[in-house]
Amino acid sequence: MYSQSGLKDIINTALVNLSYNEESERLLAPVKYVLSMGGKRLRPVLALLSCNLFSDKIDEAVIPATGLEVFHNFTLIHDDIMDKAQIRRGFATVHNRWNLNQAILSGDVMAFITNECFLQSPPGILPRVLRIFNKAAIEVCVGQQLDMDFERAAIVSREEYLRMIELKTAVLLAASAKIGSVFGGADEKDADLLYEFGKNLGMAFQIQDDILDTYGDTRVFGKASGGDIMAGKKTLLYVKASELASTEQRKKLHDIYTSGTMEPEAKIKAVTALFDQLGVRPAAESLAGEYLRNALGCLEKAGAPQERKEELIALTGALTRRES
Amino acid sequence: MYSQSGLKDIINTALVNLSYNEESERLLAPVKYVLSMGGKRLRPVLALLSCNLFSDKIDEAVIPATGLEVFHNFTLIHDDIMDKAQIRRGFATVHNRWNLNQAILSGDVMAFITNECFLQSPPGILPRVLRIFNKAAIEVCVGQQLDMDFERAAIVSREEYLRMIELKTAVLLAASAKIGSVFGGADEKDADLLYEFGKNLGMAFQIQDDILDTYGDTRVFGKASGGDIMAGKKTLLYVKASELASTEQRKKLHDIYTSGTMEPEAKIKAVTALFDQLGVRPAAESLAGEYLRNALGCLEKAGAPQERKEELIALTGALTRRES
Repeated sequence: MYSQSGLKDIINTALVNLSYNEESERLLAPVKYVLSMGGKRLRPVLALLSCNLFSDKIDEAVIPATGLEVFHNFTLIHDDIMDKAQIRRGFATVHNRWNLNQAILSGDVMAFITNECFLQSPPGILPRVLRIFNKAAIEVCVGQQLDMDFERAAIVSREEYLRMIELKTAVLLAASAKIGSVFGGADEKDADLLYEFGKNLGMAFQIQDDILDTYGDTRVFGKASGGDIMAGKKTLLYVKASELASTEQRKKLHDIYTSGTMEPEAKIKAVTALFDQLGVRPAAESLAGEYLRNALGCLEKAGAPQERKEELIALTGALTRRES
Repeated sequence: MYSQSGLKDIINTALVNLSYNEESERLLAPVKYVLSMGGKRLRPVLALLSCNLFSDKIDEAVIPATGLEVFHNFTLIHDDIMDKAQIRRGFATVHNRWNLNQAILSGDVMAFITNECFLQSPPGILPRVLRIFNKAAIEVCVGQQLDMDFERAAIVSREEYLRMIELKTAVLLAASAKIGSVFGGADEKDADLLYEFGKNLGMAFQIQDDILDTYGDTRVFGKASGGDIMAGKKTLLYVKASELASTEQRKKLHDIYTSGTMEPEAKIKAVTALFDQLGVRPAAESLAGEYLRNALGCLEKAGAPQERKEELIALTGALTRRES
């Protein structure tokens, strides 16, 4: 059985050895740049752990799993353009280091490099695997659209927020776990349980990401602290705060959040103070905990021996305690 | 047997009836907008004619062929951003009518709608068909990169230019014809001949596009006349002119082409006058004719009855006489 860190190494090696159409180094330089930045490799690791849950043989799943990481990084490059983000994982974003056109085009080619990875699946499962992936890919785009829409929306409900992160983040983790299980030979019922496991894990993961963006340590987290506040993002913290606030507090929160004149530091401090006053951090943490328990419940029901589940349980635990 | 116009209707109907993830109308509006603009539907028509060359049954190929049109329009949306194009086929481009972020994201989702179309291929040929498509998709990105690079390059050779249009335009027509032939049951040899047919057709098509951009009628062509000149594109006309020019003429051409101060009309007129002086239009037309003859030569060798080839021959002929 494989460990998380062993699988991360396997994925990193596969990423370095990916074979590309090498005709244009300019096109590929940003691709190699983002893929070499590191990161948790959560999606492919989740896929390979899910494969390993049902089978000792994971080698056929490695390149397709790597495709999940390529896809994820494609979305990051384009999201960073849309969010005007200058820094990602402590490095300059692609449109920042190169330019807008390069970030669009090098992102685009990654969508097809992803396909190329999936095309290395055995023909017998290729249609099924690609269908799971592609459905999630479309949903990720819908999620990003909702996220963009929310920036201009006056009010975002908790339900709308949760649906947005389900699409933008959770379905890809869900698809990763399900695809891995299909490679491992899981039946339809178990594959669906792994999907639900991944989805709940993804919900918790994104909620924690929101918490870390405001309360995390910049040096550890790799992004500027308070970035969501500065970007006017309707995160769970904001949505929760709106729910819990008095009419007066809600007006104050809205005024600060939409203020174009406040100094960044003052704005982040004022919003964080309101968040603290309303107790949104523990509320968000409790919701994340709920999703994590649901995730573990799905994993428990899957038809695999308990000892095979330990590594996925450990991954889930590690994500609850993460600082980046 | 099907006619070009009959197949165009079939494709247009399929495009209208494409099933989407309908959760975000905002995301889909630009997709439906570009797909409803019309156009020649050259890639799917080519695919279906190539299928019909070998088989009477084309229905399984219709949705995958439609995917080729979706992909092509995805590239147009992103290319228009990169080229800062405001008008396409007589309509406002997506980033112009909506905004940059919307054009990036709605373009992105089209890459996965394309996959969705291909996923409706029979499982037996799905891996082969997707491999042909995806290789071409990556090459199209490389071609777009070379095209961008050429804008900043001082000199572009004829060979470099021809390789660029091969990647940016011709390989997708090649893949379209080959994919169609695979649906029709062609053997590897015939499928490769159809690929070469499509590639040569694509080379001729792009060269004519370059000619039409400068010499075409704006009302018929749907793009502003002289757009390539204004954008400083290294088209075949420019490359040919550089080849044929005296040192003095070459300097003059370069100075006018890179001038940031000349009025658009004066610039287009001056460049066109130089083109006329050097006879680049007939030279470009002769090169296009060469590619068309090569295309027909490949078609001739394909193992299908002559009467089945007539519609593809007619398509080739129509492209040589087109005005848009």
